Amino acid sequence: MATERSTGSRRDFLKSVGVAGGAGVLYSAMGALGLAPAPEVRADGYRAPGKSDFTLSGRRAKKVLVLGGGIAGLATAYELGKAGYDCRILEAKDRPGGRNWTVRGGTSLTDLDGRKQTASFSKGQYMNAGPARLPQSHVTLEYCRELGVPVEVFTNQNANAYIYHESSAALAGQPIRWRTAKADVYGYVSELLAKATDQGALDAELTATDKERLIAFLQNFGAIKGKADGYAYTGTDRRGYSVEPGAAFEAGTVLGPVPSLSDVIASGVGQRFSFEFGYDQAMLMFQPVGGMDTIPYALAGAIGRDRITYGAEVLEVRNLADGADVTYRDAHGRTRTRHADFVVAAVPPMVMARIKHNLGADVTAALKYPVATPVGKIGLEYRSRWWETDEHIYGGITPTDTDLATIWYPSHGHFGRRGTLIGYYNFGANALAYSVLPHKERLARAVSRGVKIHGEKYRTELDHSFSVAWHRTPHIEGGWVGWPSQDGPEYRLLNRPAGHVYFAGDWLSHVIAWQHGAFSSARKVVTDIHERVMAA
Amino acid sequence: MATERSTGSRRDFLKSVGVAGGAGVLYSAMGALGLAPAPEVRADGYRAPGKSDFTLSGRRAKKVLVLGGGIAGLATAYELGKAGYDCRILEAKDRPGGRNWTVRGGTSLTDLDGRKQTASFSKGQYMNAGPARLPQSHVTLEYCRELGVPVEVFTNQNANAYIYHESSAALAGQPIRWRTAKADVYGYVSELLAKATDQGALDAELTATDKERLIAFLQNFGAIKGKADGYAYTGTDRRGYSVEPGAAFEAGTVLGPVPSLSDVIASGVGQRFSFEFGYDQAMLMFQPVGGMDTIPYALAGAIGRDRITYGAEVLEVRNLADGADVTYRDAHGRTRTRHADFVVAAVPPMVMARIKHNLGADVTAALKYPVATPVGKIGLEYRSRWWETDEHIYGGITPTDTDLATIWYPSHGHFGRRGTLIGYYNFGANALAYSVLPHKERLARAVSRGVKIHGEKYRTELDHSFSVAWHRTPHIEGGWVGWPSQDGPEYRLLNRPAGHVYFAGDWLSHVIAWQHGAFSSARKVVTDIHERVMAA
Repeated sequence: MATERSTGSRRDFLKSVGVAGGAGVLYSAMGALGLAPAPEVRADGYRAPGKSDFTLSGRRAKKVLVLGGGIAGLATAYELGKAGYDCRILEAKDRPGGRNWTVRGGTSLTDLDGRKQTASFSKGQYMNAGPARLPQSHVTLEYCRELGVPVEVFTNQNANAYIYHESSAALAGQPIRWRTAKADVYGYVSELLAKATDQGALDAELTATDKERLIAFLQNFGAIKGKADGYAYTGTDRRGYSVEPGAAFEAGTVLGPVPSLSDVIASGVGQRFSFEFGYDQAMLMFQPVGGMDTIPYALAGAIGRDRITYGAEVLEVRNLADGADVTYRDAHGRTRTRHADFVVAAVPPMVMARIKHNLGADVTAALKYPVATPVGKIGLEYRSRWWETDEHIYGGITPTDTDLATIWYPSHGHFGRRGTLIGYYNFGANALAYSVLPHKERLARAVSRGVKIHGEKYRTELDHSFSVAWHRTPHIEGGWVGWPSQDGPEYRLLNRPAGHVYFAGDWLSHVIAWQHGAFSSARKVVTDIHERVMAA
Repeated sequence: MATERSTGSRRDFLKSVGVAGGAGVLYSAMGALGLAPAPEVRADGYRAPGKSDFTLSGRRAKKVLVLGGGIAGLATAYELGKAGYDCRILEAKDRPGGRNWTVRGGTSLTDLDGRKQTASFSKGQYMNAGPARLPQSHVTLEYCRELGVPVEVFTNQNANAYIYHESSAALAGQPIRWRTAKADVYGYVSELLAKATDQGALDAELTATDKERLIAFLQNFGAIKGKADGYAYTGTDRRGYSVEPGAAFEAGTVLGPVPSLSDVIASGVGQRFSFEFGYDQAMLMFQPVGGMDTIPYALAGAIGRDRITYGAEVLEVRNLADGADVTYRDAHGRTRTRHADFVVAAVPPMVMARIKHNLGADVTAALKYPVATPVGKIGLEYRSRWWETDEHIYGGITPTDTDLATIWYPSHGHFGRRGTLIGYYNFGANALAYSVLPHKERLARAVSRGVKIHGEKYRTELDHSFSVAWHRTPHIEGGWVGWPSQDGPEYRLLNRPAGHVYFAGDWLSHVIAWQHGAFSSARKVVTDIHERVMAA
């Protein structure tokens, strides 16, 4: 208790110093108090460096060269730029955002296999090829607010979407609406637990009062019958209706028949439910209005477009006594070298590992340590929004046990004439199975699966399509990377600067494959650099 | 089977006749086949009358006078008007929509107790005082599409919103996030059922394979430990974090401590879960962009503004041999009488029961039979959207066991400077407890409850407010009405015309208190009238 309070008051003191005196004074005060600089930056405890830090300390802002204009790189330049740092970004592609990429009509991609696609989506239609959803707690949403990027609900879960299992031990090949699956699973689970509880099977765990309350909960949760009827689940309107209730004497016809307990369990539908309990996946979720790339374009605008050099392929990074040099090939094929006080390498680790550098063999080895995940996505533009008009599905996701993994219905443009589904969003072996094919064959394969769920209109209403295989995309080479261990020396090494060179990216966070990880990593590097400049 | 098939082929025949020949031919064909006209209209099987029905049959469209410009009345005039009927609406209020009412700055209300409020909401702020959400399957959404009313997601459920029980047997007075409540309830339920299953308590219900599959499901569903650890639930990140995961070594701190099984059950949080399994309440749900009253204004525009007389209070309805007369007092206090071929009374039954008429004492008795439910709502406009910035709640509902019933966070205007909560939406005794108070005292009472959940900002950030008590609102007099029985003679009577006078409203449907019920009832009356005209 004494220690906690003592830490507490030190923290309060530092906070008040930080607010009054800026980061420079704060960092000095930390040293005076004998506090080691924290190795991590709490996502919810970030304090942005400010210009006043320099005004007050008499120090001058430094030059920072950022390699990679994905979210981590953009956020680094944005945050340092706000504090007066002179930041430049070298980006190999012709756009900002990295994996944050919205494909519209005219967007083209040539993959590492030399295959080229150009999207022919209609005006207003798009697919978010990379990240597509924002949890409420992620700092990404804070950046949307700060940058004036409007958001709308992203429909991660919909009671009217389906679960489609064609290889299950029961109910195989029948698309089952989420609402129906939940009614049946929760009904039978409640029946079983109420019976066991009532029969005394759990008397070692539950008091008489617990039992009474538990059974009351189960009757509500599962909509099961009472004790006299053996707590039986027999189906309710939570399943949905085959005839919708209406006027006068139309009370509606509840969807039936209810499959047996054994079939419901064997169908595996219940295994899908936990997805929406995930911390990062629970509704509500959000998306920027008009496409996810609104975020990188807003960052790029705030940084200043002249500060970003597109088409710049980095050839070499040299750490020096007074900073670092970066040699790159520009969009016109000319080789150039730039000097900066600090370099932030915000590119995928396997890409960085192949760039010539003098940072040491251990850095190269560490960069090669994480493993890239193959990820694929296809966008399917339809002439009509049949999922809305015919199936009453206004957004959401249908998980399948096919190689599509999931089908996503769009969260925007409701009632419009056209709409663009995500026809697959898959990983690992499934993503590889599609990526070896040319686009036309990926499309045919995806459509053949979708037809089994939605019928022939899935083929006949189709107009345009575009697919991405992130592991075969130049300068990206993976959907994301995973670490065999985030406690080992490799991870620790890359979370420290190599001389004047820092590393940033979602892969250097505990929120990999989310933009929150990239923003958090950028904030950490920004804090580290600013602390170093202020302490110098 | 034989009967079913026979009906099926007759239906198919009628359908083909209907498509080819219009409703008139269809109805004649029905008579020829000896089919009684169906007393109900299937919400999903409605065939709108068309002008071609008259062209082809040589009949002329009739004059219809609609009493009440709520959704049922508007939809009746809209549908009949499309087919060429000469429809007029008499509406007592100065606006269309009835309970579909959006309150904005300047909106005023004088209740039956003579208390007047005028809303001072800021520009762009509003509250939907009546209906606020649209299920995906309801015809209301089809009307939005047809009328060009854009919709956006209505956030009926949010993992970051709270459950607040202050009178529960455990965890009382602690706002608990939905995600945390679900993690704990599903965790403990899974632990209990896995134990009981593993110990053979359910061997009478489950085969060995069922048991294996059920336990696999429970491990996933509840995120519980394995058999070796007694399938124990000990809490996971599904609960949420006290420190958000971030960069480098910040793995996050899972919210703790996990309350005991007994406390979780006694807290009653699990009793809230079934709300979102309800057929009409399951996500996704929708709302018109800009306010629910976009629907009645779009209907009124399509009908023609000159066809709606506002401020018209109906004094008498007289059924005649050749139609019906309606006497009303207009906005200038003049008494007028209008004649029509048919009258559709689309006003609340208890209001209609007091209007002088010659339809018989049994009609009056039937109109008095349903029971009105008191319903209240308050809108609270705040200077900041603290629920978004401080609590990461971007929409959704917090249910409570206080007399507020629920608090609703707005589903629109995210990132805006201001926002308007629903501070209570309550029924029955709770609604009465608030409605007896003048607005200022309702507000003080509501805020005192909200402060317990959200802290002092619930009071200090408040700017404007407006409350409605539907049971004390002129010409409405209830949130909705319920029938002691929808199988009895009263309900049957009002679903038939009284001479040339028809009745319509959600109260004459099996979807009471939803606009779907009003639209469906209108469609039924439209079909009945058109059938009568075509058969004449």
